Amino acid sequence: MVEEAKVDYIDVPENGLFFIPLGGVGEIGMNFYLYACDDKWIAVDCGVGFAGDRFPGIDMLMPDPAFAEKIAPKLKGLIITHAHEDHIGAVASFWPVLRCPVYVSAFAAEMLETRLDEAGLLGRAEVNVFDAGDLLELKPFEIETFAMNHSIPEACSLLIKTPYGTVFHTGDWRFDEAPIVGKPVDMKALKALKDEKIKVLIGDSTNVFVDGDIPSESDVKTALTELFGKYKGKRLIVTCFASNVGRIESIAEAAEQNGRTVCLLGRSLWRVEGAGRAAGYFRGINVFLTEEEAAECEPGSVLYLCTGCQGEPKAALSNISYGTGPVKPVKGDVVVFSSRVIPGNEQAIANIQNRFIVKGIEVVTVKDALVHVSGHCGRKDMEKLYKALKPETAVPVHGEAAHLFEHVDLAKACGVKNAVVLKDGDVLRLDLSVPEVIGEVQTGVLARDKKQLIPLNASILKQRRRMIEDGTVVATVVLDKKGSVVGDIQFSAVGLIETSDPVMEQLKESVKLAIMGISASERKENDQAIFETVKGAVRKVVVETHGRRPLVDVHLVRV
Amino acid sequence: MVEEAKVDYIDVPENGLFFIPLGGVGEIGMNFYLYACDDKWIAVDCGVGFAGDRFPGIDMLMPDPAFAEKIAPKLKGLIITHAHEDHIGAVASFWPVLRCPVYVSAFAAEMLETRLDEAGLLGRAEVNVFDAGDLLELKPFEIETFAMNHSIPEACSLLIKTPYGTVFHTGDWRFDEAPIVGKPVDMKALKALKDEKIKVLIGDSTNVFVDGDIPSESDVKTALTELFGKYKGKRLIVTCFASNVGRIESIAEAAEQNGRTVCLLGRSLWRVEGAGRAAGYFRGINVFLTEEEAAECEPGSVLYLCTGCQGEPKAALSNISYGTGPVKPVKGDVVVFSSRVIPGNEQAIANIQNRFIVKGIEVVTVKDALVHVSGHCGRKDMEKLYKALKPETAVPVHGEAAHLFEHVDLAKACGVKNAVVLKDGDVLRLDLSVPEVIGEVQTGVLARDKKQLIPLNASILKQRRRMIEDGTVVATVVLDKKGSVVGDIQFSAVGLIETSDPVMEQLKESVKLAIMGISASERKENDQAIFETVKGAVRKVVVETHGRRPLVDVHLVRV
Repeated sequence: MVEEAKVDYIDVPENGLFFIPLGGVGEIGMNFYLYACDDKWIAVDCGVGFAGDRFPGIDMLMPDPAFAEKIAPKLKGLIITHAHEDHIGAVASFWPVLRCPVYVSAFAAEMLETRLDEAGLLGRAEVNVFDAGDLLELKPFEIETFAMNHSIPEACSLLIKTPYGTVFHTGDWRFDEAPIVGKPVDMKALKALKDEKIKVLIGDSTNVFVDGDIPSESDVKTALTELFGKYKGKRLIVTCFASNVGRIESIAEAAEQNGRTVCLLGRSLWRVEGAGRAAGYFRGINVFLTEEEAAECEPGSVLYLCTGCQGEPKAALSNISYGTGPVKPVKGDVVVFSSRVIPGNEQAIANIQNRFIVKGIEVVTVKDALVHVSGHCGRKDMEKLYKALKPETAVPVHGEAAHLFEHVDLAKACGVKNAVVLKDGDVLRLDLSVPEVIGEVQTGVLARDKKQLIPLNASILKQRRRMIEDGTVVATVVLDKKGSVVGDIQFSAVGLIETSDPVMEQLKESVKLAIMGISASERKENDQAIFETVKGAVRKVVVETHGRRPLVDVHLVRV
Repeated sequence: MVEEAKVDYIDVPENGLFFIPLGGVGEIGMNFYLYACDDKWIAVDCGVGFAGDRFPGIDMLMPDPAFAEKIAPKLKGLIITHAHEDHIGAVASFWPVLRCPVYVSAFAAEMLETRLDEAGLLGRAEVNVFDAGDLLELKPFEIETFAMNHSIPEACSLLIKTPYGTVFHTGDWRFDEAPIVGKPVDMKALKALKDEKIKVLIGDSTNVFVDGDIPSESDVKTALTELFGKYKGKRLIVTCFASNVGRIESIAEAAEQNGRTVCLLGRSLWRVEGAGRAAGYFRGINVFLTEEEAAECEPGSVLYLCTGCQGEPKAALSNISYGTGPVKPVKGDVVVFSSRVIPGNEQAIANIQNRFIVKGIEVVTVKDALVHVSGHCGRKDMEKLYKALKPETAVPVHGEAAHLFEHVDLAKACGVKNAVVLKDGDVLRLDLSVPEVIGEVQTGVLARDKKQLIPLNASILKQRRRMIEDGTVVATVVLDKKGSVVGDIQFSAVGLIETSDPVMEQLKESVKLAIMGISASERKENDQAIFETVKGAVRKVVVETHGRRPLVDVHLVRV
């Protein structure tokens, strides 16, 4: 997402093996990768990114699909490595452009179904469900799916075999010797992959700055069980990432061992519950309580599991912290954040925690107990993987620039011969002894503005920033045939001047005077002169009174 | 800043000793404290807070001065503990309300002068300069100023003696055995204060979660000297907090030991340079270079010191990272962040760092070397202070709720008998054996909206949020005497719909049709019916096409 002057785009050659990230390199989010082998194409993942506060009114970003649209007729399939939004969230938006079969795991298929349904694509998009270990034949690609551990069920790496050599595309992953959902990674099978002579490894960089062992999800379950035991009889409110099915199971089992049943609060948790049950999860756990059912129970027999661990203002936990949620917490209650802080959300999360603390409610985070572990590989796991697979070349993805460069150093330290940092849109030729960037294709970022996808440099986004910084004023002036003002001059200055502010009268007087300063002949026919005069008069007043230089729009009506 | 239902405000009794925080308790920022002794008053500090992203178009928050205004005629003085914006930044704004003498150190006086000048108050506001150790006689208060260490020169604690007992007001502080500006805290004199029988300690809570020793500023200088030595001949760009005079001296001395002279980039650094020189700092250091002078030098003989360590979008470092600044960095250059990350700025800072990293520029932060230390006391310093002064009661300030409660626990563990968590506006009666909150006075937060101070619940702020979320549309309709539309119906939908969007035509048609649906008699005189009809028609179109439900303003002109 670094702004740069664009070079000429290339055509990807018909022969050879190529890797092209359209999103996901240089940012954590918007994963969207293409592979071409002799002009037959596959896509891996198709996700969204979060906009943060930089783009007012925008909460979701998507990679520009323009290039994918160009090669879409040659696309054999889109393979989704797992169901996190940054890997699957753009499928429903882009399917009408891609129109190729989608390959997903059972859980991801359930999560995708809702989105396709909302987009009116259910039954139209071909969705194929695979099990880890299945072979996907998308000639000339032969793709072996390989189960990895992650913070969502059924995450897969892809062993992509082609006539030019084999690529290992990790997706998001870690090694967990005792996961709560799925099994530990089959290390024997993984090590055997070395015999495939892996040419290139395309790998997750998220935790490349994390040293040391990352505990297992089972360790979290143990810690939660012990933690909950300390709070017998007290009201217990827990929050976690909604898609983390393993964590929800850990929390539920830890709750049950302490005589509590979990009540789910928040729509995304219920959505995951539905998808999870359909795909075979949450077996052997008490049925989750609704908010109404929980209200009938003693506080000590329930555990409230809420959405909103990132401080999202409309989620269950935020409402609860304001006292407007379904649970009214009181002194002595306990709130557990079974989650990490995503950079940028620090203050929003702290504000929620402080609202609890002032009420005498205890807040427990990962600083106090092992209530969360990451789903991404740290350095130790990465080293283990490189040593097991011995790829010739490493291509870091799923990271900001800092992560990618650090990943290169790590790969080289593990004995990997070549390591390349790409940027989105780069065309990396893989069928060479040393892979090489041969040029770029069109890429970029689109903002999802409710129903529309707009470019990040759209004028409405610039206007929104100016509305915030400088304000806007709309002035209406009606002139008759002689060029005289008729009726009232009217103003709107939404978000800039209160309607009761005497400045509104001052604006009216100034604009009237300014128009009278234009010659009668000009007033009769020169719209431009009226526009400029009104704009100038409005700006002069607002700069003086409010210190802002607003955008001014003039509605000039001639009657 | 927690929103709560307001209780009735009390009048502060005429007799007795009272402490009233108007800002600074429950937040880090907006420090503004009042003390009353037998209805004579003093104020301590008068600062601003940063708005973050919560209030669009607002960058500065201030405590509501309404209560201070009420007691202003009885105000003997405003004492500033140090020159950080969160302690001094509101003086120029509130002086016209307070109209009392201001007591500041020499450096703070220099920093304040610019602000008073901008506000046209220079020469009108009485500013008295004190040296640490001076006694301020503001009867019945007798205030001993006591030099502490901090990340800005001349920070003071106040020993406030009254007929009802003595209060120690720490201000922001730490112990530094080898500071770069000022001297180490005089521990012997500090310990002697115990004999004053300190009733209450009002203390800084910022780093109450920081365990272990916090190194000295001299250690930073040593680390910087060593670090710069590694980059002989390379272009070196460093950023730090502009007001940290000690750090600027550390950087300059470390630079000189490596044959470099510092060039300052950024207005706030030059402002601090001016204030610092006037107050006697930067002695024995080479004169700082301007950008033009530095351009004449070899990269290896200069060190560029920039504003923008928090990722501020318009500061020098941000411009440099985009390649639009006065220095154009290239591969092999080095950027050092001699600063910490203020919560909320993580992503803005990471974005800048990533822009350097993709260009092959090395980024050094506190994770890599001791290039920064905090100016606030950690737990060890706090324990040392409590053990030295043995106050009867501790009142934590300068912290969010989490910090205040933790500070209470720490104080009690140090043997302090009473510890009270307040909120802004609380009236704490100190002339009791155990201090007690007896009620509240008016408090709150105001937003500085360029030239205006507005309440946080001002309708223009709500409108700004709605403009971002839902958009606004202004529609102009001109009706003649018969109630028929004359001239063009016009629309502005700034930041919502591009002017070239065909939806603009659709809006026109829909509104015209809707008005025609109103009976002729209603059209002639019922303005309200026209408003509602136009609003409804506009909303219907925009919900369908843009998925937003905009604020609609109607300019109805009858001619």
